[in-house]
Order: sequence, then structure tokens, then C-alpha cells
Amino acid sequence: MTTQINQIAKWLNEKQLDVAYFSDFHSIAYLTGFESDPIERTLALFVFPNAEPFIFAPALEVEAVKQTGWAFPVYGYQDSEDAYQLIAKHLRDSKQALNRWAVEAGQLTLLRANEVKRVISEADFAADLTPVMTEMRLIKTPDEIAKMHQAGRDVDTAFEYGFAALAEGKTELAVAAKLEYELKQRGVVGMSFDSLVQFGKHAAEPHGATGLNTLKNGDLALFDLGTLYEGYVSDATRTVAFKQVSNHQRDIYNIVLEAQLTAQAAAKPGMTAGELDAVARDVITKAGYGEYFVHRLGHGIGSSVHESIQIASGNELILKAGMAFSIEPGIYIPGDLGIRIEDSVVLTEDGADSFTHLSKELRIID
Amino acid sequence: MTTQINQIAKWLNEKQLDVAYFSDFHSIAYLTGFESDPIERTLALFVFPNAEPFIFAPALEVEAVKQTGWAFPVYGYQDSEDAYQLIAKHLRDSKQALNRWAVEAGQLTLLRANEVKRVISEADFAADLTPVMTEMRLIKTPDEIAKMHQAGRDVDTAFEYGFAALAEGKTELAVAAKLEYELKQRGVVGMSFDSLVQFGKHAAEPHGATGLNTLKNGDLALFDLGTLYEGYVSDATRTVAFKQVSNHQRDIYNIVLEAQLTAQAAAKPGMTAGELDAVARDVITKAGYGEYFVHRLGHGIGSSVHESIQIASGNELILKAGMAFSIEPGIYIPGDLGIRIEDSVVLTEDGADSFTHLSKELRIID
Repeated sequence: MTTQINQIAKWLNEKQLDVAYFSDFHSIAYLTGFESDPIERTLALFVFPNAEPFIFAPALEVEAVKQTGWAFPVYGYQDSEDAYQLIAKHLRDSKQALNRWAVEAGQLTLLRANEVKRVISEADFAADLTPVMTEMRLIKTPDEIAKMHQAGRDVDTAFEYGFAALAEGKTELAVAAKLEYELKQRGVVGMSFDSLVQFGKHAAEPHGATGLNTLKNGDLALFDLGTLYEGYVSDATRTVAFKQVSNHQRDIYNIVLEAQLTAQAAAKPGMTAGELDAVARDVITKAGYGEYFVHRLGHGIGSSVHESIQIASGNELILKAGMAFSIEPGIYIPGDLGIRIEDSVVLTEDGADSFTHLSKELRIID
Repeated sequence: MTTQINQIAKWLNEKQLDVAYFSDFHSIAYLTGFESDPIERTLALFVFPNAEPFIFAPALEVEAVKQTGWAFPVYGYQDSEDAYQLIAKHLRDSKQALNRWAVEAGQLTLLRANEVKRVISEADFAADLTPVMTEMRLIKTPDEIAKMHQAGRDVDTAFEYGFAALAEGKTELAVAAKLEYELKQRGVVGMSFDSLVQFGKHAAEPHGATGLNTLKNGDLALFDLGTLYEGYVSDATRTVAFKQVSNHQRDIYNIVLEAQLTAQAAAKPGMTAGELDAVARDVITKAGYGEYFVHRLGHGIGSSVHESIQIASGNELILKAGMAFSIEPGIYIPGDLGIRIEDSVVLTEDGADSFTHLSKELRIID
């Protein structure tokens, strides 16, 4: 049984629950290694405190489940069959009590909850798996970390393609398209979010989108990029100067850089997320630009860029080894410029281990 | 009130329901024109049989809701507030009965259903909105059809870029990347699914993926492409020959073409989906290749390529004007070749109106 399923079984024992029902395909992929979006069909994983787990899947997926190395039963069903009646049969065959259920309340639909009640009338949805899964996913496994390092290497390459695509008069959209094209040519399967390329004063909008602004000599160009590798993502930002750089641009760049480097060096297990935010924010505030750093320092990252950690002012969450998140201070002066520098990292006992390694010193692209 | 919201209000009256609660952002976008994924935040639309509807949204989205021209109340909330307590207050202010609820059972999570029960103890989830919405969305509005025509024009262009990118020794992935790059250069915002490019015998796997196969003289190249335009998608397939074509390839191509053209000409309101599937399948079966046409003839299309219509053998669904779906027969001979030709169409009283117009005659690309 995978370590993660063992943890669920142990938790069920502690809470005196009879069964855990996973209905969300992302959770099932995380727990079993079998990744497939069944769309409207039913895919389910059942875990018991003291019996072997099983997967219930569309018949045409059964072989694929076995090929992942799943060592427990997998039961298939045809579209013409009543999936929940079959689930009930397999559950009854397990000879376990089925009164106290743990379900993913934040993902399980009312329709599916009602289906369970229809076939197992004693089912009581006594506990929510969502917080358990969220907590478990906060700490990355070595396999997850390895995939995130590969995604990080790919995004390092993506920046180089992006910088090489810069040319006077070119649009942000054209530069983004070019770097994505080059990445796909070398086998990167996709981006983890829409590539963000912003030139000049447009970069002062931290929630803006890649558009039709054209590049001019002396502009700063901001790239916020992420790639996808075997279900895991990267997320990093670099800001470069095109052809030339003013003292004003360089001064502000160096403040952001100092904030980023200081926070990345300070990150360690035991501090709170709020304390880490403050490390970067203090550097920018002391330099007189605090009002222009308008967002949190970072966010959790893993199989998506929307994981639950918030590296934000006042957040009391205690950082632990295995947590992965971005460190991305920025200064945005409306009508003038926007600069952000971001690495995503995983915490180890020794500090932050970055997934990206491209230099953060100011580069001038010719 | 939009026509669609009026229809919901009318349905509530007929079914003697007190309120409809929409929790799925796709449904809210369809009914109100306000499109935003709130991720973990709460976005809700409430519709009553005899009172004005309201939207409940994160405070930072309230202005955006108003800008869409929404003429009814929109109430905001801050992250620090109890969203469902506020929802209860606004519901109570409406002075409507709140006993019999219609909810999207296929989308509403148990967590949100429990939140409703917590704040409105008399709430009884008496009816499911999911089938009502599915039924409503089957019939496209003129605005939706106009957007799908634009997406169709874009994918016509996509094929031309794809054909131009063909060159001996090039990989499927490189051709897909090139055509996507060219599309983005001219402002197409994105693809509606991963572009499928398959060369030679690889095209015999109708569920395969774009890969590292390289193009050879005399290969057929299959392109299954879709673009996105203002939330609506296109989906079409063309198969072309590279440099030369054998008689065997041409013969099979012409069978698929006849099946596609015959079905597209036959499609009209009043027939069943199964009957339409049979029109194409009969052509292929009579030509002796029935066993190699291994999938349904088509599927619904609209804001996604997974809409609920199945143009499949035995389906008794009666086709109506305003329904949009693909017509995509294919012949797949393992180890030899795969040919598919697909247009997506909307039914009118007069027959099928195609979103794509690129010629379906066999083309040989030099």
C-alpha cells in the first residue's frame, strides 16, 4: 500500500471511521498513481481502517489501473450497469462496517452523495477528508520533488527562449507564442498557466495579461512562466532590460533582488509564513517602496499553482520541511514600471532548495 | 432578465419551487454573461419564481459583474466574512419562501449543501437543476452560434498553418507547435483541446496523442484541431496526403468523405441521433470497412467539446434546430492508416450549417 493510503487508513482508525470514499480524480491520482479524468463516469477509491483498499473504475480503464502497479482489487463497470449498485456489492463483500464514512465534502457532489445513500442506507457522512488531503499534500514526497525539479529545469530553458525572442516592435503575445513554440519543439508537453509577458509600464499591472504592447528600447520585460512535467508544475519570474537600463530601473531592480535573495536565504522550517513575508517586505519598505509591493510574497505549488499555502502577512502557518512555495516580491509603479523576481522552492531542514537556477542578476538583452 | 433566467423562473413556477441556487461558475456565466472562476471563494446566483434574481460574489468581483450589464442586485463579501450567513440575510430580505430548493446536484458539493442547511434550516433540496441546464444548453442562442462560427473560421486557418508546416522528417509535436504558434501570432487566444497531429499508421489509433513520429513521403497526416473564441470552441478534422497518395489511401479516403458528406447532407431536425449515426455508418459498412469505424459519429459542442449530445448508434435523442455537434466518421486500419474527416455544425430548420468551410476533398501537400 502506498505510504499515503497507509496514512489514510491510520487516520480512519484514530477517528473510528469505517470507510473513506474518494471521488475526486486528482485525489485518486495522488493516492494511487492512476491519473484519469473520468468526466461523467464514476471513478472511486475506497480505503478501510483494517482491510485492503479497492478502486472502482469504468471497465475500459481497468487495464490502465493495473499497469500503474496497483496491487489491490480494481473493479470495472460498463456504462449500461448501475455503478452505485455495483459499488454497494463490493463494499458489502468487504465485510466491513459501513456506517461512519469519510468523504471529500469539498469535492463530492450532492448527486453522488445521494447515490451512496440510495445504495448504503446506513451511510453517515461523519467526517471530511478534504482537510486531511490538503494537509497531506502540503508535504511533498521525494518523487513529487524530483518532478518539480524537472519542471524547474524546463522553465529555466523557457526564459532563455523568451529572452532570445525579444526584438524591437514585437508584441508580448508574439514573444510568449515563440517561447512556447520552442519549448514544445524540445518536448515540453505544456505550460502550467498562460505565459505572462509584459513590457514597460504594462508590467506595473501585476494582474494584467500578455497583450499587444510592443517592445521599445529601454523597456523592462517581465516573464512569469510555468511548465508542466508529469503532472507537476513550475512557476518562476524574471525581469530583464531590453538594450539599455536607466539608473532608476536598476535601483528598483536591485531592491526587489535583495528582497528576493534575503527571503530565500531566510526561509527555514519553524518560522511562520507571515514571518517569511515580512523578511522580503521589510527590505522593500525600508527602501521606501512598501506601498508598491501590493501582493503576498508567495503561494503553494505542486500539481497546480493554486495550492493552499499563502506566504502572506499575518499568516501563522508554520513552515515545515517538504513544503513547496513561491518567493516572488515585486515593485509596481503605475505608469512607470513593474519588476518581479520569483523562484519556487521546497523547504528542507537546511533551508530553501530552489527548483529554478537561472541567474537573478539584472540582464540586459541586446 | 436574460431569456435564460426567465426560463428558469418559469420552470420554478411550474414545479412549485421556491428558489434556484446556482453554484457552478460555468452555469452562472451561461445565465448572466459574468464569467469568472472563483476557485475556492463563493460565487452564487439565486433565481426566484416571482422576484428578481441576485448574484452573490467576492467583493473584488462586484464591479466586474456590474460591467457585464447585470441589471439586478449583486452583493459582495470579504474573505473575513461568513459568506453563507450573508447569503441567508439576502435571501431573507427577498421575502420569498425558502423551503423548496432547486440545486445543481451534479455540481453542488456536499460542503456547500451543508452550508446552505446550516443557515437556512428549512431548505429542502427538492429538485435538480442539472438536467434543466443540460437541456437548455442543448439549444444554442444566436449569440452562441455567432461565436462558434468565429471559432470555426479560426480553425479553418489553423489547418492551413498545419499543412504548411509539414516537411519530411518533422515530428507530429513540431507541426502542432508550429501551427499553434502561428495562430497565436494572429491573435487566437488558445486551443480548445490539445492539438492532435498523427502521421501514417499512428493515425490508426483514434485515441492516440501527438507524439514524436516523423513524417515520410506518402504518409497521410491527420489533424484534429479546435480553437477557442470568447468561451466557445471549434472542433474539426482534416486528413491530407504528403507528397504522394496511393490508390489504397485514396479509395479509403473517398469512402470516409462520402460518409461525412452524406451524413452532413442528411442531418435535419426530427431525426434521431442514432439515425444520423446510421447514415454515415451504412456508407462505410457497405464499402466493407464497418469494423474499422470504431467510434460514435459525433458529440455535442458549445462552450466545451464534451457537451452531452451523443451522435451514436441506438441513441433515441431527437435532433432539434439549435443543436450543435460534430460529424466525424473515420476508418482506422491498425498498422496501416487512419482517416477521419470532421466538421462541427449547428442544425437549422433547413439542415446542418457548418462552422468550418475548408474543402474536404483529398489534398496532396507538396
